[in-house]
Amino acid sequence: MAETVTEICRRAAACAPELAGLDGATKDAGLQAMAEALRDAAGDLTIANKEDVATAEAQGTSQTLLDRLTLTSSRLEGMASGLRAVAAQNDPVGEVVGAWRRPNGLTIEEVRAPLGVVAVIYEARPNVTSDVAGLCLKSGNASVLRGSSIALNSNMAIVEVLRGALDSAGIPVDAVQLVPDASRTSAVDLMTAKGLVDLLVPRGGAALIKSIEDNATVPYIIDGDGNCHIYVDEFADEAMATSIVVNAKTQRPSVCNALETLVVHESKAAVWLPGLLDELAAAGVEIRGDERVGEAWPRATAATDEDWATEYLDLVLAVRVVGSFDEAVAHINRYGTANAEGIVTRDLTVARRFATEIDAGSIFVNASTRFSDGGEFGYGAEIGISTQKLHARGPMGLRALTSTKYVVWGEGQIRS
Amino acid sequence: MAETVTEICRRAAACAPELAGLDGATKDAGLQAMAEALRDAAGDLTIANKEDVATAEAQGTSQTLLDRLTLTSSRLEGMASGLRAVAAQNDPVGEVVGAWRRPNGLTIEEVRAPLGVVAVIYEARPNVTSDVAGLCLKSGNASVLRGSSIALNSNMAIVEVLRGALDSAGIPVDAVQLVPDASRTSAVDLMTAKGLVDLLVPRGGAALIKSIEDNATVPYIIDGDGNCHIYVDEFADEAMATSIVVNAKTQRPSVCNALETLVVHESKAAVWLPGLLDELAAAGVEIRGDERVGEAWPRATAATDEDWATEYLDLVLAVRVVGSFDEAVAHINRYGTANAEGIVTRDLTVARRFATEIDAGSIFVNASTRFSDGGEFGYGAEIGISTQKLHARGPMGLRALTSTKYVVWGEGQIRS
Repeated sequence: MAETVTEICRRAAACAPELAGLDGATKDAGLQAMAEALRDAAGDLTIANKEDVATAEAQGTSQTLLDRLTLTSSRLEGMASGLRAVAAQNDPVGEVVGAWRRPNGLTIEEVRAPLGVVAVIYEARPNVTSDVAGLCLKSGNASVLRGSSIALNSNMAIVEVLRGALDSAGIPVDAVQLVPDASRTSAVDLMTAKGLVDLLVPRGGAALIKSIEDNATVPYIIDGDGNCHIYVDEFADEAMATSIVVNAKTQRPSVCNALETLVVHESKAAVWLPGLLDELAAAGVEIRGDERVGEAWPRATAATDEDWATEYLDLVLAVRVVGSFDEAVAHINRYGTANAEGIVTRDLTVARRFATEIDAGSIFVNASTRFSDGGEFGYGAEIGISTQKLHARGPMGLRALTSTKYVVWGEGQIRS
Repeated sequence: MAETVTEICRRAAACAPELAGLDGATKDAGLQAMAEALRDAAGDLTIANKEDVATAEAQGTSQTLLDRLTLTSSRLEGMASGLRAVAAQNDPVGEVVGAWRRPNGLTIEEVRAPLGVVAVIYEARPNVTSDVAGLCLKSGNASVLRGSSIALNSNMAIVEVLRGALDSAGIPVDAVQLVPDASRTSAVDLMTAKGLVDLLVPRGGAALIKSIEDNATVPYIIDGDGNCHIYVDEFADEAMATSIVVNAKTQRPSVCNALETLVVHESKAAVWLPGLLDELAAAGVEIRGDERVGEAWPRATAATDEDWATEYLDLVLAVRVVGSFDEAVAHINRYGTANAEGIVTRDLTVARRFATEIDAGSIFVNASTRFSDGGEFGYGAEIGISTQKLHARGPMGLRALTSTKYVVWGEGQIRS
């Protein structure tokens, strides 16, 4: 008998107050137990995962997706390390963000507190299951996980293992629950569980985000697209620019922090750009450029306005030559998706202006956009990358899973 | 020819980047000029306001609303002081919230940045016009103000004065705009100005909040109800409890931080409660209590479940006697609206548990709930009081009008 999403959320909400009150040592012991349990259960987990992979193969699933789905022992080790890295973070709950005294003697403290129930809808990768469970536990929240049907066996097995570990650590097992039904209905049920879900994070493509925007009545944070840019300024170190652009485009083109459009100052168009594009082409990258790119490197195909707006997630790069810094900023603010934007320059003023004027979650000065990632930021794991402005922006770690409350201490003050 | 909301929002968005880059001194000079201009224009403003008041009176508007609508010279002085108090706050823009270095040498800074365009839909009080304009300017945002039709003349006159002051201070006048049409359509247009409005704050009653929840496609923060409680614990100082309860209920019963339900530990039911209720009754407060209240003070009428859930905003108080601290917490977390909740106690452990276990924006220990207010928190003015958990909670000042971005400084780091 399938449980309803509402029942799952009610159980999560019921244990949320206890989770909010757990001390850090208990939560860390739970996270260590979860990591240990994943390693101990590696055999069973790979068996459950093989079922998912076999079914997916039989359905003609793409090789990329099959790769994301597959659990190997090194990936399980990575999931365990992720849980340990989360345990090593400071406990965000109870952190006093600020405190001040008022003229009437009241002391006001702004204190970090868990959100309550966090729901995450995600796609094939089973490692998300343990990442989310770990981040939510450490931040004092109950998690409701809704993975994709293609990974259902794997996720059920992982969650069973994690709940066993919680139990052994004296933590309510309903701190981590999986929705055992990966239908569209269960997703919409989560989106509309108003009053039960304090935060919903969708980790998926455009269709999922559209569905959230159309249906959600619960608060959510969009984990959005990444039409990422790098601007190579006239004062750029050319070798550094080449290294960063090649890395951002080719190291893992299918992810949201990969480079999609290169913006180049005109002073670099003749002297540096052709060599870079030769190198990218040799690495299998298709180049789509504006007119001036075509002049500098005739093998480029002509870019259209659609190219500027497209997140290829593939070995394709749009390239535009600009006459000024302002033109570069205008292009990036127009077409960027507020995820990660980079600049290569040796000029401090230009770098500072770029950081101020670009409207994005993360701005990289002389570094690859591929670092837009919770793990790379030192968060142990990430719940997603916010491309919105409210609550959290950029890679989201533990603090993004908390809210604050004001605690006001007095000695009988009344208002006159 | 009435301008459309979209055109107004476009102009706001167009000047937002310039506002984001303004230094604090320029913004403060603008705020001082706005304050000065309000005083200088006091004559014209009261004339414009008298038209609104006359029309409202002719329409049979209630005395309470007429009072809220009326601009007096002392209220104009208060508006000017509010602007000066906002000028005296630290500039939130550019504040480095946190910064750390990664093992690979990257330095990550989390920096506060404006949201962009902030829209506020509000009711009769014209002072909100200058408060919101001032808070938005100081936080580097463009404001789009949509007041109620009853105050339209007053608001138009105020905004004209404020824009003149901006102009004299060299700040784009479109930093502050009023929607010159207070129809339902203009409100819905603002709620659906997706991509143009970065934050919408509704300051109004249940109908406005419902409309936002039904229609809004732009991000919003609910400035919500206040079904506020005070729990008088067994370890309470009785004189302090009386003073705080009387203040929270009677000092200004029509506002969201006024007391609505008193929760009393049973040990105080016979010894202290009757005297308190005598005092409240003498001040004109109607008492609705549970059975044990009726035993202690027979003049109380019987409270129903509806009373526990009602925000009276009037001289009515619901009173409940509980057998334990846990029972008090459960009642408050069930019926509270996450605005302001108070406790009176001399016991430190009880106070700390209350602060941790109550799920609300502001928790008052031995102080009146009436202090849940941006001005009383020292914010100069407030954009509202958030009763939601995401982004901002409790009284919202300048920081609630900002987001953060990550600026990552490198020397050529790439990801391996």
